[in-house]
Amino acid sequence: MLRTQRSSLKWTRFPADVLPMFVAEMDFAVASEVRDALVERVRLSDTGYLDGPGPLAPAFAEFAADRWGWEIDHRFIHLATDVATGVVESLRAARPGGGRLAIPTPTYPGFFEMLQELPFETAQIPLRAEPDGLGAHGFGLDLDAIEAEFERGIDAFILCNPHNPHGVAFTREELTRLARLAAAHDVFVVSDEIHAPLLHRGAEFVPFAPIAAEAGAIAAIATSASKGWNLAGAKCSVLVAADERANRVLAGLPPEAVTRTSILGLHAGVAAFRDGRDWLDRAVAQIEANVELFGSLAAERLPGVTLIRPRAGYLAWLDLREAGLGEHPARELRVKARLALNNGSSFGAGGAGHARINLACAPDTIVRAVDRIASLQNGTRGGNA
Amino acid sequence: MLRTQRSSLKWTRFPADVLPMFVAEMDFAVASEVRDALVERVRLSDTGYLDGPGPLAPAFAEFAADRWGWEIDHRFIHLATDVATGVVESLRAARPGGGRLAIPTPTYPGFFEMLQELPFETAQIPLRAEPDGLGAHGFGLDLDAIEAEFERGIDAFILCNPHNPHGVAFTREELTRLARLAAAHDVFVVSDEIHAPLLHRGAEFVPFAPIAAEAGAIAAIATSASKGWNLAGAKCSVLVAADERANRVLAGLPPEAVTRTSILGLHAGVAAFRDGRDWLDRAVAQIEANVELFGSLAAERLPGVTLIRPRAGYLAWLDLREAGLGEHPARELRVKARLALNNGSSFGAGGAGHARINLACAPDTIVRAVDRIASLQNGTRGGNA
Ligand SMILES: Cc1ncc(COP(=O)(O)O)c(C=O)c1O
Ligand SMILES: Cc1ncc(COP(=O)(O)O)c(C=O)c1O
Repeated sequence: MLRTQRSSLKWTRFPADVLPMFVAEMDFAVASEVRDALVERVRLSDTGYLDGPGPLAPAFAEFAADRWGWEIDHRFIHLATDVATGVVESLRAARPGGGRLAIPTPTYPGFFEMLQELPFETAQIPLRAEPDGLGAHGFGLDLDAIEAEFERGIDAFILCNPHNPHGVAFTREELTRLARLAAAHDVFVVSDEIHAPLLHRGAEFVPFAPIAAEAGAIAAIATSASKGWNLAGAKCSVLVAADERANRVLAGLPPEAVTRTSILGLHAGVAAFRDGRDWLDRAVAQIEANVELFGSLAAERLPGVTLIRPRAGYLAWLDLREAGLGEHPARELRVKARLALNNGSSFGAGGAGHARINLACAPDTIVRAVDRIASLQNGTRGGNA
Repeated sequence: MLRTQRSSLKWTRFPADVLPMFVAEMDFAVASEVRDALVERVRLSDTGYLDGPGPLAPAFAEFAADRWGWEIDHRFIHLATDVATGVVESLRAARPGGGRLAIPTPTYPGFFEMLQELPFETAQIPLRAEPDGLGAHGFGLDLDAIEAEFERGIDAFILCNPHNPHGVAFTREELTRLARLAAAHDVFVVSDEIHAPLLHRGAEFVPFAPIAAEAGAIAAIATSASKGWNLAGAKCSVLVAADERANRVLAGLPPEAVTRTSILGLHAGVAAFRDGRDWLDRAVAQIEANVELFGSLAAERLPGVTLIRPRAGYLAWLDLREAGLGEHPARELRVKARLALNNGSSFGAGGAGHARINLACAPDTIVRAVDRIASLQNGTRGGNA
């Protein structure tokens, strides 16, 4: 049914018999508070240009204070079309000449697309497996490797926290050491915190801005309601300066960054951050249940498939190296089992042999995905599950 | 009432006692076909990522063929967030290293903002007054000056057709000569045709793409439903390659240009180009009547105020050099008469002493604007009209 109702990438990229569990779009219906806000703006013909963050600044700041204890000066909040644009434009503003950029991997493939627009040389720094960190499959920043790279000369760093695809929310200790290293080596940090609203129960999210400000690191935070409330196509995000110094850097954003942001997206974001918290909590509960369901079905029926349990977000990283699906498991699954996941190799160093699955769906969809993987592992052709 | 209903730039930039007739937003209600399309997408939670122009390609191509006889190969149609983004990104794709760029002036101030993002040196080429061209106040491209500038070495050219702020649609002869010069001097042309849907009755609009293709000039056309149907805040535009060679240039657009475009804006654009033609014709008729009204009231009551009658769009250029409003007439009008127009000086060479007025409003608003200008000219304080 979603396939007939939705015209987005998730539903148009592959033929109808492919079960789409790749791109970060949710199957859930959008929160009624958000839908009502959008419909009201359309009814009022309020479809002109934005002149600034307006009501989004207090809406986001109150959400951030309430959920994460992050107090934001409204003057530090800027608009961008989406988080990707915010990342690109903040890097351009901070480091107009480019230079060397470090990024922990495996990570969101979009970052590599963004980097095609920028004159940086990229250093990939694989995450460290932390067996006694966040559980059996915890991962963390490899701060020794980061320090060594900073000493070699780094101009900018992309932090993704919570991290896509592992769903790890980095600890205060990790972030503090990162901020101190950035301050010491004059590294501009853009922290992509788009998945933070989707924090799972019991996990902790530590916003980077106060830590950067404290350490004297120059940082900008890129975030949006687009993942938490499934509004990627509504085109509105915020860029938050960590302090006055970072705010002066963001004064160098394109003069038209504001008008490139959607007034509809902005009102959707206001409704989401201000009125969409109950919906968000229900979405997270559903996601957590889906993670459990996938995990238990995989343990039972999918030998060699290891689920890295996310602590935030609805994307889960699968280690398929022992699953008997060959060198290119995601391609194998798509072509032979008619199941579209994200191909691990596109996530950079350390991604090969892995795939990313999107669990923001009905539980039934999870069961169908497991059926398809199982049928491929069993050598029967999938696609009809 | 609009001030309480709308949150866009036009209604938030200045205090409530200022009559806003500056930025290019219409006061008219959005076409019901467009509103219905937006509401439907919201109802379906169709708020994810775009994967390409999809239904917008045929919708725009049919409109272009029907209205202007321009036949477009759908493969040549690309997405961008808005026309401004399309202009910036096509210039980046065509001329990554920048160079020298020529632009006829006075022109849309947004172009100078866009140029702040790009490594070009800019040559402004004033339009030529054409007393026997398009009527008493016709203006045209100064092709001799353009040729001389191209001979000096130009890498890119911004054409704005119909031209903002004069509302002139350039003639086939002018465009043909421009295309030949561009081909001869290897100048990339981006043609901003955003105002073309709002062509007035009796005027002719000549799309640049077929002429560029014929002449062998590399050109991209940036356009959108955003001006014609007042959807600037919905964030969707198209970039059309004039031919295969231009299409190869546009292959260098950012990989994320598509996902930066709004799915809501796309469906609004489809509804506009496909189903919104009657609404458009009614809007144009209202604009034409408003131009007449302003023209006759100005002739009667505003000595020294010369209206350049637009042949397309709802923006009109006012020559205020003889109006007795001092060196900075737009500022004078805003501060003393509480009427916000666009300041002519921001339109580049030739703009001083002028102002741009937005006539996409109720006739009553025009009368109030004239009252305010008249009261300032008569030395009585305006602001209560
Ligand atoms: C970490 C991360 N950053 C950015 C994005 C893209 O965000 P936006 O659509 O706001 O550009 C995604 C989308 O999945 C993401 O996972
Ligand atoms: C000539 C011209 N180009 C571009 C724009 C901006 O278009 P968009 O909002 O699609 O970027 C305008 C807005 O008034 C305009 O007049």
